[in-house]
This record gives sequence, C-alpha cells and structure tokens, in this order.
Amino acid sequence: MSGVNEVEHPAHAPGAPIVTVIGDGQLARMMQTAAIELGCSLRLLAGSRDASAAQVCADVLLGDFRNLASVREAAAGSDAITFDHEHVPNEHLDELIAEGFNVQPQPEALIFAQDKLLMRKKLREVGAPVPPFAAIESVDDGLAFWDAVEGQVCLKARRGGYDGKGVWFPGQREELRELVSSLLEAGTPLMAEKKVALRGELSAMVARTPSGATQPWPVVASVQENGVCAQATAPAPGIDAELRRRAETLSIDIARELGVTGVLAVELFLSEDENGQADISINELAMRPHNTGHWTQDGCITSQFEQHIRAVLDLPLGATNTTAPYTVMANVLGAERDPSMPMADRVAKVMHVVPDAKIHLYGKQHRPGRKIGHVNACGEDLESVRRRAQAAAHFLRHAQWPEGFAPESL
Amino acid sequence: MSGVNEVEHPAHAPGAPIVTVIGDGQLARMMQTAAIELGCSLRLLAGSRDASAAQVCADVLLGDFRNLASVREAAAGSDAITFDHEHVPNEHLDELIAEGFNVQPQPEALIFAQDKLLMRKKLREVGAPVPPFAAIESVDDGLAFWDAVEGQVCLKARRGGYDGKGVWFPGQREELRELVSSLLEAGTPLMAEKKVALRGELSAMVARTPSGATQPWPVVASVQENGVCAQATAPAPGIDAELRRRAETLSIDIARELGVTGVLAVELFLSEDENGQADISINELAMRPHNTGHWTQDGCITSQFEQHIRAVLDLPLGATNTTAPYTVMANVLGAERDPSMPMADRVAKVMHVVPDAKIHLYGKQHRPGRKIGHVNACGEDLESVRRRAQAAAHFLRHAQWPEGFAPESL
Repeated sequence: MSGVNEVEHPAHAPGAPIVTVIGDGQLARMMQTAAIELGCSLRLLAGSRDASAAQVCADVLLGDFRNLASVREAAAGSDAITFDHEHVPNEHLDELIAEGFNVQPQPEALIFAQDKLLMRKKLREVGAPVPPFAAIESVDDGLAFWDAVEGQVCLKARRGGYDGKGVWFPGQREELRELVSSLLEAGTPLMAEKKVALRGELSAMVARTPSGATQPWPVVASVQENGVCAQATAPAPGIDAELRRRAETLSIDIARELGVTGVLAVELFLSEDENGQADISINELAMRPHNTGHWTQDGCITSQFEQHIRAVLDLPLGATNTTAPYTVMANVLGAERDPSMPMADRVAKVMHVVPDAKIHLYGKQHRPGRKIGHVNACGEDLESVRRRAQAAAHFLRHAQWPEGFAPESL
Repeated sequence: MSGVNEVEHPAHAPGAPIVTVIGDGQLARMMQTAAIELGCSLRLLAGSRDASAAQVCADVLLGDFRNLASVREAAAGSDAITFDHEHVPNEHLDELIAEGFNVQPQPEALIFAQDKLLMRKKLREVGAPVPPFAAIESVDDGLAFWDAVEGQVCLKARRGGYDGKGVWFPGQREELRELVSSLLEAGTPLMAEKKVALRGELSAMVARTPSGATQPWPVVASVQENGVCAQATAPAPGIDAELRRRAETLSIDIARELGVTGVLAVELFLSEDENGQADISINELAMRPHNTGHWTQDGCITSQFEQHIRAVLDLPLGATNTTAPYTVMANVLGAERDPSMPMADRVAKVMHVVPDAKIHLYGKQHRPGRKIGHVNACGEDLESVRRRAQAAAHFLRHAQWPEGFAPESL
C-alpha cells in the first residue's frame, strides 16, 4: 500500500480513514456529509474551488481527472480512492493500482459502467436479463438489427451518454441509416438494443465491499422525464414480492459477477412477458451513489452515501431497513427560465408549507435542466407523500405550486 | 444590515445564505452537515485548523472568539452569526449588533445561559419552576443558605461551569464554609441552590425564530455520569402525558420570555412533590444545539442542527415528528486509558455487530472524559434499542463489550 494515512492536511484527524473522491459534483458533496458524521473527511480532486463538493470540503486539490499526475496527487496518502462519475481514464486507474493505491471500484468493474456494449455482453454471459442488442459498426449492422427487431430500435452511444444524452429512437429505417452513418462518421462507437414495451422503470441498488459482503436496498420505482430521473418511490409500489426479490437478487449477483465495490445501481426496465406477467430487464448500470438512491438519506437507516464510504473502505455495511413505509424523492431541475423569486425565498416558502419536506440543495447555479437539488418526503400514505415531495420540488423549480395543488390541503 | 452575502469565498454558492459560527467543536461540525444539505455552508471562526469543525469546512478563519476584531472579521458578510458555545463576550456581540450584524441568539438572551444566578432570578420572575436558590457573596450567605435548606446545598460557580465542572456538593457546614471562602477568594462568583431529590433528569428542547415561531421536540430522559451526559432516550419513557406537555410548554414559554433564538435546551430535574406526584424544576439552560438533542439526527424529521440553522436564519421551522418509536443516544467519552485497538478498528467492529447503530465521531483525539462521539440507535423495543446504543458506545470507548453483553444476541 502506498502511504496510508500519510496525508498531513489538518482536515484529516489522525487515525481516521481518508477517502479521496475524484469528482466535485453533488454525489461527492453528499459523500462528505456522510463522511463527516463517520468521523472522517474527504480529500477531493475538484475542477474548481466553487464546485458543489469543493464548497464543503477542507482538503481540496484542483486538477483535471483526465490527468494522471493530478489523480495521483489526490490519491497520495488516502486509504481508498473512489469517484462521483465514471469518466476517469481506466489506464490511469490501472497505473495507480500498480503503484499500490486502493482504487474502489476497480477498472475491471468500471469498464462495464463505461461501455454499454461490453456491459450487455457481460450481463448476457452471466445470465442476467438484457433486451436483444447488437454492436453497430456499420450502416449494414444497423439495418440488419432494424429488420431483426422489426423496427423497435433504440440506438445508443457506447460511451459517455447519461441523463438521456447519447440515446436515439429512430422512427424509420431511413432515419436509422442516416443516424448511424453520421454518428459513425463522427467517431461515435454505437450499439443498438430492442425497445422495451415499458410498464415502468425500477432501480435495484446494492453495496458491495472488497471483501465480498453485499447489502441491497429495497427496490424503487423511478420516473424519467426526457431521459432524466424526475422521481423515485421507495419501496416500489405495486410490485409483487417475487419480482422484488428477483430484482434484489439480480443486483447482488451483478455486483458479485462484475466485481463491483461501493454502491451499484441497476436501472431496470419493467415490462410484460407474453403471458402478461411483469418482467424485468437491465437498462443501465452505475457504480457509485445514484439519483434513484437519494431517498435513502431520509428514508433508510444507512444512506447510499454512508454505505459507499463504508464499502470502499471495506468496513462492514450498514442496515438498509426503511425508516418510513414510503419515501418519495423528487428532483429539482433548473427550469427553462429561472424564476425571478430568489432560490432562498423559494426555500423559505417550501419550508413554511411543507415542514416535513427534506430539502437537499447542491450549491449549484441555475441552468435549464440541470440537477440542482432534490426533496425527500416520508410517510405512511403514498399519495400524500408523493404530493408533498412533488409540490416542494416543483416550487423550488418554478416558484409556483403545481396545477391543482392547494397548499392549505396539507 | 451589514453586507449581506458580500462574502466572495468560493465556499459560498451565490445567493445561498451564509451562517457564521463562532466556535469549532462538534456542535459546529454537525451544523455543517445540516447546512451542506440545505445548500449552504458555514463560515467558521476556529481556534485551529485541525479543530473538529474546521476539519470539515472550507471557509475557516483562525482567530480568538474573545477578540472583537476576529469575531467581526468572521461575521463580515454573513446572514446570521451564531455560536457553538456561550463564551463570546457579550460586549463584543453588543458591538456587532450596533454595527448592524445579525447575531442569533442575542446577548439579552445569552446572558441567562451564561450566568446561573441571573438565569434563576429571571426564571422565578416569569413563574418558571426553579429550586430555592441564593446569591452567595460571603461565607455568611453560604451558611445562612445551609441552614435554610437544612444542609441540602448545591454550590455553583455562576459562570463557566459545564459537564459537572463548577458544581460542588458540600457534605458538612464546615466544608461549605471552606469551599465558599476559598472560591470567593479566588474570585469565583457563586450561587447556591437546594439539592433536589432526583428521580431522574429530563431535557425539553425547542427552537425559536427571531420572528417568534417555536417548535419543540419530544421531551427526552437523560442520564448523567459524573455530571456529564451519558445517555438520552427519546421520548422520555415512563412520563405521563400531562407532565410531558408541561415540560414542552415550559420550554416554549422560556424561549419566548427570554427572547431565545435558535435551539434552546432546558435541562430539567425530575422529582416528587409532597404527594408523591412527579414534578419538574429547571436545572440549566443552553442556547445552542445540546448533547441531549443529538438523537434528533437519526430519530426525528428535523435534527437540532438543521433546526438551529433554520432558526437563526429566520426560516420556517421543520417538523419534529419522530421517525421511530424510540431513539437512544449514548455518548462516547474518552476512557481513562485509551485502548490499544485503534479507533478505526473499533468502528469496524461496532459496524459489524450493530449494523443499525448510527456512529457519529467528531474527529477529536483521545483525552480521558472528552466527548469524542456518540451513537444513536432507533427502534420499537426500548430495551433492545438501549442495549444496542450502549454496547456500541461502550465498545468505541473501551474496545470491549459491556459486561454481560453477548454480541450474538442482537
């Protein structure tokens, strides 16, 4: 091991584990709140001093995660190195591991969160359910796949897409031909999968330690808008126990088979099989805390952020019992036009009307569609919980209540 | 107002409120975790860069809270100035207020948390129950009080005492004479109160905003060891609803009458009146988050740290419903001799045996009797909850389980 606990920055209490996080977004920010309570504190590689996570950490190195020297400098002396995104070049991570650093998760696992084609091949290999897919390396590949799935084509960039980016649904064979042609010409590696007749989307999350311990969370239902997570409900309502168990077991199996460490999110398609029975198949994987796990901050004994810290340090995992019958998480995305009412005033209004809403803001400035915060609400009555979470997030976004929402009705 | 939001430190997102905290201990540290999630971040006046709270904040000024220039520098540009202790000289705070700074709570209230004699006079004046007391300005005062309460004397330094310091229980008249004589000679202003025949201790906590809104938490039972809080149980078991309501109402009344803003802790003696009925009287006041309120981090919708931030910013207060039938908080104090097992290994062991224990560590080094952390456990069965919290805290302190505790029994 390279220099464990050698960092002499005053941010780190002697003897407390040090976790280096590569990345400066809200996921790193919320890891810091968990780390603080556990008695440690993060060492951050950030792009700027005013980034979301850098605002709330004392030991911040400025640098580029694509630069090996920066990543190595941030890693020096820490007990574990982890990430709030999947974009650190794997060759840098391989180099760090060769130098004795403790990188979690490791590139062997991360590759399956980075490359959508490799992911599907691996998942099929281990027997996990994925929709029919194919590598698209030519226009002919694309057209053959179109014919094979009778036009139900979802075209995806193999790398770099998220939040609805890098995904296309061509409506016609000609459209597909042009898309594939221009994307390949632009150097975008492609794959295609068969569109799923969606009944909904689920997310099965689990944490796994380097020692091999696993601990899942209850499966949640998520709602996407324009490819971006808008809402998550935990536990997923209307799902029978057998399917719930199947999704949970699947997440554990994938974590094991792919050697994931830290938090793994398995985004699932919920569909119907030929007999009208509910069925699941895998949409995407993320190897870090995930938007569909934000509910755990207020609805679960151990949040995904605490669990990720525990997992990458190979500490025993925490209990994942819920603390309320239902928790709903609603995202706060930047509106098309930022309302003139200052965010601080919107927060005050929401606090007044929904005193049990748990508001989480990321210290980010407005940009249309940008994730700038989320709201959790907990309780027994799902409809009421959902109404409160939605109304609070809507007001934070638009400075007005959703249509039909009567504040006095709460 | 002096320069609201004028601070241009990158720790502070434009438009987000800035709270300056004078003090660098665990209370400020835990305010930071609450502030982060609310989308703000603290500006800290700390004594050293490696202090508990300074480890986890980006905007830290080093300075002495007894120095007006330091306090003024820390206050500059913030929306509210608050404290994690009561020791900032009130004349400095008066000066800041005169200069237009928003200090919460204000010296007019703080004085009653600083001077135990003024506190009791004020409480008696507003009709709140306090044990018989007297100013002790001479040996004769002391002896007269001894006679009046038939030797049931608790002698207290008027200022500066906490965690059992500055409190004496003389067993004999002669002992009292010598104590008073030497303490007065040493320049320690004194008061005395009649010892209460204790059945237990309670803590009634409430938050109040500058606008006058109040929100209490459920009353808790606390256990002191050697004058230091060892444990708190929420809600206080075995207390009838009428007494609970009386304690709650009392805390609200005191907050109003004394003009407290932020969090107020009213430490209560639980005793029996002449008819054997349970009765309460006031022991101490604290005008900040308090050890007996740490349970709210894991057992309540709104923690005392979040509520304090909301209150000092005059934001609407959060709901204080509990999230579990019972929460027990057990303190982790430095043992007489620090065990050889490193704290990180103790943490791992506790995480393994008690996976639902919520561990909170302060980044502090060992010193006998020093508060270095606490553990919260939640659940339905009080005995089980207590056993888990106690065992976890005990192991963190001593690197061994309490006598008679069988880890496999959990």
